[in-house]
Amino acid sequence: KEILWVGASSSVPTEYQNADNISKPGHVLTPELVDSHTHIVFGGDRSFEYTMRLNGADYEEIATAGGGILSTMKNTNEESLEQLFAKAVERIERLKNYGIGTIEVKSGYSLSYQREMDITRLIHKLKGHFRGKVQIHNTYLAAHAVPKNYASSEKYMDKVVIPLLEELSPEGIIDSVDIFHEEGYFCKKDAEKLFSKAIELKIPVRIHADEFNDNKGAILAHKHNALSCDHLLCTGQDGIDTLSKSNTVATLLPGTAYFLGKPLANAQSFLDSGCKVALASDYNPGSCHCDNLLLLASLAAKNMGFNISQLWSAITLNAAHSLGLHDQGAIIPGLRPRFSLFNVSSVDEITYSWGRNFSVSL
Amino acid sequence: KEILWVGASSSVPTEYQNADNISKPGHVLTPELVDSHTHIVFGGDRSFEYTMRLNGADYEEIATAGGGILSTMKNTNEESLEQLFAKAVERIERLKNYGIGTIEVKSGYSLSYQREMDITRLIHKLKGHFRGKVQIHNTYLAAHAVPKNYASSEKYMDKVVIPLLEELSPEGIIDSVDIFHEEGYFCKKDAEKLFSKAIELKIPVRIHADEFNDNKGAILAHKHNALSCDHLLCTGQDGIDTLSKSNTVATLLPGTAYFLGKPLANAQSFLDSGCKVALASDYNPGSCHCDNLLLLASLAAKNMGFNISQLWSAITLNAAHSLGLHDQGAIIPGLRPRFSLFNVSSVDEITYSWGRNFSVSL
Repeated sequence: KEILWVGASSSVPTEYQNADNISKPGHVLTPELVDSHTHIVFGGDRSFEYTMRLNGADYEEIATAGGGILSTMKNTNEESLEQLFAKAVERIERLKNYGIGTIEVKSGYSLSYQREMDITRLIHKLKGHFRGKVQIHNTYLAAHAVPKNYASSEKYMDKVVIPLLEELSPEGIIDSVDIFHEEGYFCKKDAEKLFSKAIELKIPVRIHADEFNDNKGAILAHKHNALSCDHLLCTGQDGIDTLSKSNTVATLLPGTAYFLGKPLANAQSFLDSGCKVALASDYNPGSCHCDNLLLLASLAAKNMGFNISQLWSAITLNAAHSLGLHDQGAIIPGLRPRFSLFNVSSVDEITYSWGRNFSVSL
Repeated sequence: KEILWVGASSSVPTEYQNADNISKPGHVLTPELVDSHTHIVFGGDRSFEYTMRLNGADYEEIATAGGGILSTMKNTNEESLEQLFAKAVERIERLKNYGIGTIEVKSGYSLSYQREMDITRLIHKLKGHFRGKVQIHNTYLAAHAVPKNYASSEKYMDKVVIPLLEELSPEGIIDSVDIFHEEGYFCKKDAEKLFSKAIELKIPVRIHADEFNDNKGAILAHKHNALSCDHLLCTGQDGIDTLSKSNTVATLLPGTAYFLGKPLANAQSFLDSGCKVALASDYNPGSCHCDNLLLLASLAAKNMGFNISQLWSAITLNAAHSLGLHDQGAIIPGLRPRFSLFNVSSVDEITYSWGRNFSVSL
């Protein structure tokens, strides 16, 4: 199916008068909302950490109290796959109710060979479960952190990340490959190894880049023709210039900055340089437990310097491009008819009314 | 009614075993949420302004396009009182659904003698409508802005604000008196005139202070024993020190800063100096169209330096004090049993899950 024609109801050409149509007077139809960066599959509950952080605890104190990413790892490994699946379904239903029609879902909270395999397959099962309702993009992020039982990131890459990717690849269920490229996580060499393998297997790549330091993740992303380069809190002008000349989408995650009490990404520079900029939720249990993309985008827009077109592109067209979906994201003939529908009298109302959910089912 | 005893269910003293009780296993009961600063009674729709502002328009361009406070004034004067009442009821119902049990409601969008009178009475009617469900505090804010048909703020004070206060006072429906004390709005002399009259009429006062400049509104508030002093974006250390020694609550409105793309108030200084700090939504059509206090407080906490106790005090106890309500805001014997109830397994979950509504009716 595709959009056949765009214009006023009164001037629909004769040949399209009997085409499929949606008639919802008093509503606003937008290109489909896309949340292009989520870590929605996880076990456990880390709500107490937010309280600890408000009370001044640092990462070490939180880890000592049983928190941090290791706690999510433990719970993601201990809960049954049925439990993890049920929780993910509930979370995706909630996003769907906000009007989000395409969701990227990353693996990466098990960090063991067998369980990362299970979780990538679980995300594929989620894709089947939501077929026709929510479109799911399955991202392989076994390279999320280095588990303690490996002496180095290199060992973990060689024992788990690379061989598991090779094993899963024939199943055709991985839509893209991701890596957490930061000091203390995975270095440039690890990323290049993963990206080369992925490209050999004809799987596109994406990257968590420049979140804590300007370690040239944006430039690395461009070199490997990444679909997307995410976080970018510390990217220098060289990285921004590189992205502006590439097809790689710059994905900013304002919720994470708000949640951690850090400054927002320098969105204005990315926008002014002509980068394709997306906004995503980064919904996850540790650094951004906010699943409401429209809220985050509306809230961050003024503070990041997005105008209204840039805001909507960031959560529809550019977000779709960051998932390799070039056939959606705008209401123009030839694209797939993927829309979100809102019970408002004008599109302005949606971004003006923070935290209110006007979305209705199509 | 009052709270009789606090402790574990297993050790309730015999004499209280048959007292009224709420039994909600699997839920969390908190002191009642209080939104202590709202402008909920208004006509019209200014959603297009947020879009214009994202697109770079300034106040003048917005005014030329028919926006700004004058547009709210026009619509608030033109819509019928029945319409204004119905809209306010719908808005208050929404706050109630978030778990907010006490709401301050300001007049101040008509700025004419007759209509400001009507609206103060309309707020009183809202109070009756919600009796037993939501407690409403009626704030007289005829001194919100100087209408164009008055040569000076002094003239408007003498023709409208003061005489209308005198006329309405015998009805006993005004809970406090407020003024917008800023350059280009109302000066110190206006505020002192209003406060003296209010105190003579035994009505407590509050003030919009130091939002655009440090014009010593906090010090003025203390001098007149104001219940609350609100905004405080530009207050200097002298103002903070004064508030820290007074009973006047420092009410911060983070939503307004986020909505306008301005820096947040320097909450840390107020907290460190020992001020009683409240957080409120400032829900209004122009500078903060967000009605979700828990969302705003949870979001701002980390960025403003609130710990979890300060956060909850700011939206329960201190917010209640800022409305002169010293018999609620905590779960301790002797206070009124005013609570909010949440369907969560721990209190941490509430502030951790931004934008989700866990509130259930009591």
